[in-house]
Amino acid sequence: MKINTDDLSRSLEDYLEAIYQLEKKNRVARVKDIADLLNVQMPSVTGAIKILKNKNLVNYEKNSFISLSETGLTIAESVQNRHSALKDFLEKILLMPSKTAEDQACKMEHAIDPETAMRFRSCTRFFREEVLGKKIVDPARWKKIITAKQ
Amino acid sequence: MKINTDDLSRSLEDYLEAIYQLEKKNRVARVKDIADLLNVQMPSVTGAIKILKNKNLVNYEKNSFISLSETGLTIAESVQNRHSALKDFLEKILLMPSKTAEDQACKMEHAIDPETAMRFRSCTRFFREEVLGKKIVDPARWKKIITAKQ
Repeated sequence: MKINTDDLSRSLEDYLEAIYQLEKKNRVARVKDIADLLNVQMPSVTGAIKILKNKNLVNYEKNSFISLSETGLTIAESVQNRHSALKDFLEKILLMPSKTAEDQACKMEHAIDPETAMRFRSCTRFFREEVLGKKIVDPARWKKIITAKQ
Repeated sequence: MKINTDDLSRSLEDYLEAIYQLEKKNRVARVKDIADLLNVQMPSVTGAIKILKNKNLVNYEKNSFISLSETGLTIAESVQNRHSALKDFLEKILLMPSKTAEDQACKMEHAIDPETAMRFRSCTRFFREEVLGKKIVDPARWKKIITAKQ
């Protein structure tokens, strides 16, 4: 089956996000660290980096570190932002276990646009402050409602 | 870049969903109709159908109609169910335009499990009945909150 553009951009976003996280954590990103983080083979990383370099999203010379270009950084930050908006909603409002919220946010982050992410964020904040916070529904009742089998 | 299992299962779910919709609408599903619906080339459909047949998810003999097997139907219904839970939430609670909600639900449906879909549904119902319904927040104020730029 042919890979489609959506699948491709999704994978590329994953790579940008990984480089972003590694740069933050270790100051630099290496092929091996990216492969470990994304649980993929090193040749896959090299292939992805080549595409990202052609798109001017990363800086990379053979056997050196990989770093995000300015545009690459903007995209990586947008992905991170969508990720955290989704994870917060899944974990704090839908009360999904943290690990599940993390895994599903990782996949959903590529499916939504920044506008939707912002609305998820507004919804989470309103719900916490004005619904749970003002005891329109108390936490125990909310847990019962949200986990009820239908 | 190598296609990964997630991408593959996502595409296959799209095919199952398309066959489900065509069977519902036209009683039968044909390669050409699937290609039109998913906006892909006919050889891609044939390739996908072959994989689905090997997995016993569809019934198909060359030049005949395609139909879902019992397992295929169960999966297609699950995808449809996740789709409608997400679309309802995006459209009715986050007030996304219908077309955007439809497009994003189409992508998100593959990223969440049935449990998360059920919680989205419970959240939508609660919000409509007990928050908007009981005027904890009136629709005009909600629109302002949810569309506010941050």
